[in-house]
Amino acid sequence: MRRMIRIISVLALGLLTLVAGQAQQTQVEVEQILMDTPSPERARQWLFSLTEEPHVAGTPAQYKVVEFVRDRFKEFGLETEMVKYDVFLNYPKSVSLRMIQPREETLSLVEEVYSKDKDSTPEGQFPAFHGYGASGRAVGQIVYVNYGAPSDFDRLKDLGISVQGRVVLVRYGGAFRGLKVKEAQDRGAAGVLIYSDPEDDGYMRGDIYPDGPWRAASAIQRGSVQFLSTQPGDPSTPGYPSTAAARRLSRNQMETLPKIPSLPIAYAEAEKLLRSLGGPRVPDAWQGGLAFAYHVGPGPAAVELDVQMDEAIRPIYNVIATIPGSVEPDRWVILGNHTDAWTPGAIDPNSGTAVLIETARSLSAALKAGWRPRRTILLCGWDAEEYGLVGSTEWAEDRAAELQAKAVAYVNLDAAVSGNEFGSSGVPSLRDLMRQVAAKVPEPRRSGAIAVSWERRLKEAWASSAPVTVDGAEQTFELQLGRLGSGSDYTAFLDNLGIPSLDFGFGGANGPYHSVYDNFFWMSRFGDPEFLFHQAAARLYGLLAWRLSSDKITPLRFSNYGGALMEDINAIRTDVIRRARMAEGQAFKPDFSSIVAAIREFDTAGHEVDRVADRLASSDNNATIARFNDALMQVERAFLNNEGLPRRPWFRHQLIAPGLTTGYAPWPFPGLREAVEKRDRAMFDAEAKKVVAAIKAGTEKLRAAK
Amino acid sequence: MRRMIRIISVLALGLLTLVAGQAQQTQVEVEQILMDTPSPERARQWLFSLTEEPHVAGTPAQYKVVEFVRDRFKEFGLETEMVKYDVFLNYPKSVSLRMIQPREETLSLVEEVYSKDKDSTPEGQFPAFHGYGASGRAVGQIVYVNYGAPSDFDRLKDLGISVQGRVVLVRYGGAFRGLKVKEAQDRGAAGVLIYSDPEDDGYMRGDIYPDGPWRAASAIQRGSVQFLSTQPGDPSTPGYPSTAAARRLSRNQMETLPKIPSLPIAYAEAEKLLRSLGGPRVPDAWQGGLAFAYHVGPGPAAVELDVQMDEAIRPIYNVIATIPGSVEPDRWVILGNHTDAWTPGAIDPNSGTAVLIETARSLSAALKAGWRPRRTILLCGWDAEEYGLVGSTEWAEDRAAELQAKAVAYVNLDAAVSGNEFGSSGVPSLRDLMRQVAAKVPEPRRSGAIAVSWERRLKEAWASSAPVTVDGAEQTFELQLGRLGSGSDYTAFLDNLGIPSLDFGFGGANGPYHSVYDNFFWMSRFGDPEFLFHQAAARLYGLLAWRLSSDKITPLRFSNYGGALMEDINAIRTDVIRRARMAEGQAFKPDFSSIVAAIREFDTAGHEVDRVADRLASSDNNATIARFNDALMQVERAFLNNEGLPRRPWFRHQLIAPGLTTGYAPWPFPGLREAVEKRDRAMFDAEAKKVVAAIKAGTEKLRAAK
Repeated sequence: MRRMIRIISVLALGLLTLVAGQAQQTQVEVEQILMDTPSPERARQWLFSLTEEPHVAGTPAQYKVVEFVRDRFKEFGLETEMVKYDVFLNYPKSVSLRMIQPREETLSLVEEVYSKDKDSTPEGQFPAFHGYGASGRAVGQIVYVNYGAPSDFDRLKDLGISVQGRVVLVRYGGAFRGLKVKEAQDRGAAGVLIYSDPEDDGYMRGDIYPDGPWRAASAIQRGSVQFLSTQPGDPSTPGYPSTAAARRLSRNQMETLPKIPSLPIAYAEAEKLLRSLGGPRVPDAWQGGLAFAYHVGPGPAAVELDVQMDEAIRPIYNVIATIPGSVEPDRWVILGNHTDAWTPGAIDPNSGTAVLIETARSLSAALKAGWRPRRTILLCGWDAEEYGLVGSTEWAEDRAAELQAKAVAYVNLDAAVSGNEFGSSGVPSLRDLMRQVAAKVPEPRRSGAIAVSWERRLKEAWASSAPVTVDGAEQTFELQLGRLGSGSDYTAFLDNLGIPSLDFGFGGANGPYHSVYDNFFWMSRFGDPEFLFHQAAARLYGLLAWRLSSDKITPLRFSNYGGALMEDINAIRTDVIRRARMAEGQAFKPDFSSIVAAIREFDTAGHEVDRVADRLASSDNNATIARFNDALMQVERAFLNNEGLPRRPWFRHQLIAPGLTTGYAPWPFPGLREAVEKRDRAMFDAEAKKVVAAIKAGTEKLRAAK
Repeated sequence: MRRMIRIISVLALGLLTLVAGQAQQTQVEVEQILMDTPSPERARQWLFSLTEEPHVAGTPAQYKVVEFVRDRFKEFGLETEMVKYDVFLNYPKSVSLRMIQPREETLSLVEEVYSKDKDSTPEGQFPAFHGYGASGRAVGQIVYVNYGAPSDFDRLKDLGISVQGRVVLVRYGGAFRGLKVKEAQDRGAAGVLIYSDPEDDGYMRGDIYPDGPWRAASAIQRGSVQFLSTQPGDPSTPGYPSTAAARRLSRNQMETLPKIPSLPIAYAEAEKLLRSLGGPRVPDAWQGGLAFAYHVGPGPAAVELDVQMDEAIRPIYNVIATIPGSVEPDRWVILGNHTDAWTPGAIDPNSGTAVLIETARSLSAALKAGWRPRRTILLCGWDAEEYGLVGSTEWAEDRAAELQAKAVAYVNLDAAVSGNEFGSSGVPSLRDLMRQVAAKVPEPRRSGAIAVSWERRLKEAWASSAPVTVDGAEQTFELQLGRLGSGSDYTAFLDNLGIPSLDFGFGGANGPYHSVYDNFFWMSRFGDPEFLFHQAAARLYGLLAWRLSSDKITPLRFSNYGGALMEDINAIRTDVIRRARMAEGQAFKPDFSSIVAAIREFDTAGHEVDRVADRLASSDNNATIARFNDALMQVERAFLNNEGLPRRPWFRHQLIAPGLTTGYAPWPFPGLREAVEKRDRAMFDAEAKKVVAAIKAGTEKLRAAK
């Protein structure tokens, strides 16, 4: 019944496209299709199929998953291609870990099987290893170094303990795991073990698998140890695409990969080592959730770890469906989610892939009802994300010029559902769009729209943490998107190419992260048993694709961008003031005035251009609109600098990057932040010039739009 | 050799007291004696004797300890008396605790014996019980309610769980234990178990006894469950002294004692109950340090607890030594520390008692060298502090009129040494004195004076937590004493009588608090193996006694008092603004302007009076000086109001009190704070009037001094 009304309406539209009232009617209809089509049951079916086997990049199992996605897109009537790259990948040939002091014991590198959960078997599954980890053998005493951050290693040094020639035991959390290995390697360690502490995602957070969603004692967090914040993508072709004919670096030449061996381990195994450490008691913040007082070591616990990798150039496949634009076909709106997984990967990434497929089905339904997007939509399944954003990076490098000319926005998914809490990160110019779309979709478990509970949660965090001044005017809360760091496929689009990017998802008790328990049993029991959040994510994704592709005026809005930049720069200024408090005479006091002035100008221009956008909304002059849209698209590009960031030229965006020492977490104004960390005034001044130039270039683009 | 120089100097002094240069010389000499006399070895001896047995108030063992203190004072040549009161005390006649669901098991109420530590034996020791706990039997399912704060019980209610007729299991920490029992009782619980969670003072903090200083799995925190924030002292004589002839309330009439039974238990026992709880997983902040995910219950764990008390009126003994003043004998400087202990009590209180004895020896040495204090010094050992500050409160009530007329200051010790971190709380008018004295005494383990590391530690905490504003002027750090809450013997002096009070000590890993492991073995192994911090504490105590008793101008300084009050009122204003952030239209916005204005006036008068003090320092007009000193002494008295605080009239100080729901932690501006918590505008306005009147009365006293 509902379907029939749609067809009638679309027929009417065919006759009356120039009548504004009717165009409005169509918009309501398209929105309704994109709201009505996504189905929990379909998402459940897609997820069930996608998670049938572990599907690591480059394996036959992953090829089957890519084909499955391609076949769905085709089945929905979308023009779809597979894009192959040949990239460097490693698999474990043999891995072993033995405690040799104070007693001999072989430590487990596989997970416990739970009879309720058929997918918890290690069968068809690699044992514990690190993507891009080095081959090697290390024998040495254990030293515990908390999260393995540079500040943790500094603290260890203050305690008079060296990691030289020893095996560093660190816990997951904080920085991207590859940067833990990098820091240990730079400080002379012989090897690294990274374990999951129960404080961080085990029983201290809630009931553990299979009784609850949190990490079981035997669960192992696999993952890549690439030095992600220096450069992602295939390490054999840094900065250029991994086509068949590409020139390759040898393993030894790959500077973004570790030289020392590392392994991920479960807390059941780590406990045996930690309980056997002497030396000083750890600094308070290093204590984790195991039921004894942690010590730093070194020793007496000692281990032998032996890792031999099977390294080769292997084929990977991105799958890309295209929905051509009717008015601006050379303007692209890109949606993407990766397809490869370390394990069955029900959360990561297949909740996202299931949502991507369901979104494709939903857009296809709108197409069948007569809708044609103004701009071209690309739906992308990226391969080998888990190794280092490889599929998306190689494609972005391959198509760089075209993307810079054509891409309006990139919207990423990855692990779309691990719980019920909506969150979104992105460039500030996409904040209004995300909020509008989230206001359309009902929250599955609460009354009201997703936007309502999202805003309430962020406002509560703000209310309890934002400083209060008794004499000044009370600050008001402004909803902002999180800033994008790295760890997913938006990285090349935003940081290398300056394409406005957005990421969202429903987070929660992601205890099984990168373990075999990230599987269909977990999702259907704990994560999203009714698949209502998958449905909600597909609604959001479809509405975002629709608005970005079909709004006459591209929905990039700039009134909020200056304010967001001011928040970011003030966070750095606050940090500088705080550090100066204990520095007495030697305080580092850089000059922020030129940056603040540049942001103010950008802010003014942003407000003006949004007023122009409001005016143009009623225009029918396609040439004027296209010029305006192009200018909006170019603002983010203006923030790039071809020199890139200090010692990481691939990262060209001057206003945002993954933290050099965090990987995952963003550093707004990355050059300034690095200079502040190093207390380097000359570097600060040089980076400030680049930042001011970038902001001014953005301001020029805004002014050009008017 | 050093001693001989002193005698010569004192002889010279006898001839030349009117020569200013020589008077200066004497001061330097007295200071030297008070620095040189305290000896680590003597402190060690005193502690060894004091901790020979557990010595609970009213027992023969405690009488021996009081005699020991008296005999030392007498041995040093000090005029000493024992002051007896007859007070209500309880001992356990029989206590038992049995888990009855999901299995039958008797839970232990005694601690494990460690062969290395002869004092860890339960022999001569009461089993686990609560001072002033009720007799009774309770059978019911367990419900876990975190720290048992009112907000915890509210949260439980939000989860839809009632404690009615059930046995509440709460952890130690936060509020005074009696207030946990009160809250559970008010909400209908049948009984209460309070356990020590390893997150709070067990292995999550460091190595546990006997390998380290922190709480062992079987250690039990005894203690009083009086409703301390309503009224301390003997509950059979509320507000008046427990003399032999005093009229007595019956047990049922004692409104500050619980009616439902309670017991303290160890985490080894609590774990058995917690592991057997179903129901919802706890809110995140309720998770403790045991190695599983906590649940709220109710049940299936259920217990039977049976507590039968032996209650009676029993004799207690304060011991008081007097050093008469030479110029202002009717002005008293009071030093006090309690003598009773739940167990051997090496930290609590005997580190303080050892320091008090060593201070007495040191003052005695100065007396022998010819020094005579200008004002009278009283050295007091209080009995039955552990039950509810009973000895000090009864004495203060007994001597109230005289104390209000004569007491210049009260300096408290209690658990003087449990580690190395110096801390001090007190009225702001004693801040300068404490800082000056701490600048004289070397830190035993670091270079520099105690004042240096004290200030650095506080400044570091300020630097990392105080808000930063990027546009305003950076705040500067101002060292402040902590505010006095309750939980020790300063309470009657400050809160009931308005006597300027001070408390200090060296804190640290106080894991054995109120357990049998708080004994000499612990102190000599972990707390202060060389007794250097005992020595430092005796130096500080001696110097404080000397300055307060002998400075011509009483060392009460007021330039800082207004600033401290402003900090306190701003903390409440900040809290109001923060709460208003989520309240939308219904924000509670009381008017602070009259209070702020009153503080500003007080601040101005404080600065002026300090300038007068500086001028008078060179005066020899004893009458003028005495008038000035009397005015200074009266400022704190002016903050009292005979109505007292809402529903707790014994607490008469309008600017400071123990928190109604915290007991230990202070509430500055307690009436205002309570009104803010209740969002009661009428109450706020009424309390604001009382506060303004109190501050104005203080300002009048300051002006009278000029």
